[in-house]
Amino acid sequence: MMRTAVLQMQARAGAVSANLERIEEALAQAAASGADLLVAPELAVQGYGAGEAFAQLAEPRDGTSLTRLQATVERTGVALVVGFAERGADRALYNSAAALRAGEAPVVYRKAQLYESYERTHFAPGKIEATTFRLESMTVGMLICFDVEFPEHVRRLALAGADVIAVPTALPDLPSSVFVAERIVPVRAFENQLFIAYADLVGHDGQMSYAGRSVIVAPDGEDLARASADEVRLLVADLGTEAYSESRALNPYLAELRV
Amino acid sequence: MMRTAVLQMQARAGAVSANLERIEEALAQAAASGADLLVAPELAVQGYGAGEAFAQLAEPRDGTSLTRLQATVERTGVALVVGFAERGADRALYNSAAALRAGEAPVVYRKAQLYESYERTHFAPGKIEATTFRLESMTVGMLICFDVEFPEHVRRLALAGADVIAVPTALPDLPSSVFVAERIVPVRAFENQLFIAYADLVGHDGQMSYAGRSVIVAPDGEDLARASADEVRLLVADLGTEAYSESRALNPYLAELRV
Repeated sequence: MMRTAVLQMQARAGAVSANLERIEEALAQAAASGADLLVAPELAVQGYGAGEAFAQLAEPRDGTSLTRLQATVERTGVALVVGFAERGADRALYNSAAALRAGEAPVVYRKAQLYESYERTHFAPGKIEATTFRLESMTVGMLICFDVEFPEHVRRLALAGADVIAVPTALPDLPSSVFVAERIVPVRAFENQLFIAYADLVGHDGQMSYAGRSVIVAPDGEDLARASADEVRLLVADLGTEAYSESRALNPYLAELRV
Repeated sequence: MMRTAVLQMQARAGAVSANLERIEEALAQAAASGADLLVAPELAVQGYGAGEAFAQLAEPRDGTSLTRLQATVERTGVALVVGFAERGADRALYNSAAALRAGEAPVVYRKAQLYESYERTHFAPGKIEATTFRLESMTVGMLICFDVEFPEHVRRLALAGADVIAVPTALPDLPSSVFVAERIVPVRAFENQLFIAYADLVGHDGQMSYAGRSVIVAPDGEDLARASADEVRLLVADLGTEAYSESRALNPYLAELRV
């Protein structure tokens, strides 16, 4: 059993220090709730709307921001998955998510499916690969925003043994985003019989508006906790696969898939 | 533009003649509604619950039942996708769907993902392949019931150019079937930006009960027509891709997929 928190937050475009403070406050709050893991949104460190400033603000995995967050992870004992603009060793910029755990090296996933010209202008796409880490006897996979809308990427992680997918996201405030957050995300959980922790931005970050509706979904496709379209909020839910053994037996998609 | 009808019907297990009469009545009704295509449920000809009787009642593609339905298709001018128990040239039994069009040879799809021991006892699985036909300037793909719950099979047809997927189904009356009919099917349409015509059985066929909730879904994931859990009904909707060009531009999953 793993208690998981999802932070629906308002990030400010380019305001790294203010954004880090919010994430650190949420880590403390998650610790007080007894959570083992906190998932924060896409590009939460630099702010999704940072645009041209990403080139200055992007950091390597051992940069100032992740080092500071790692220290907070060590202090609170809560693991963190958080979106950040990464300066790769190859000098390219990536839209990445870091998994920080006490006493462990960071595990970093780079977004594979960049969304629209805004992201393609600022970032290089990551490799297509299953990135997972272990926590509290569960295997956690990572995807970022648009990635999870493609069934292939979730399936890849499920076949690699993921019990949970952590998804930092920054869903724009468009009519079709309601369908993504409320329909696609639960179906991804059900069709793979796993948990999804989907952490969205909310409000306006000085550049763009976001759809909120962050959610923790169970393998039977039901919401365990769901935020509204406009609130700043920490969701908390307990993830335990035993409770879903009947759903897994009735819907054995992974075992029965023929390709 | 193709006007499409979906027949939510009560089939009787093993009562081929009575089932054919219902399908023929629906073809006449579809013709009166100006429909180009009628989709009927899985194993509608022999009845999903026929069990041991499938061995006697299964027919080849040029057997009595399809020959009779082909004549009705020629007379009404309405094409038909219908589920039937097929006796293959290899003597094996298949859970198949036939597409019958005026002046054309039948196109037959064999269910790839057999569901539970009931189907695996009576049928051999079909090959994994994209089976499509052309009608009214649209490409129609075929899947049967459990097949559509796997995103891989719908994607295969979408990548083969399908604009519409016709899905004869026989969804058992279980709690999780509501999720399948109301959540998974719309997401399959959205994530591939195509139409789905999902034709279910309803009521009790003498052996089993079915979930109803047949639907015609648009590429934007919205229901164009939806039956209730317990009514016998003919759904009719107009399918035209032009109306969804904005949705396709905003959600270009096929063009952007990286694998």
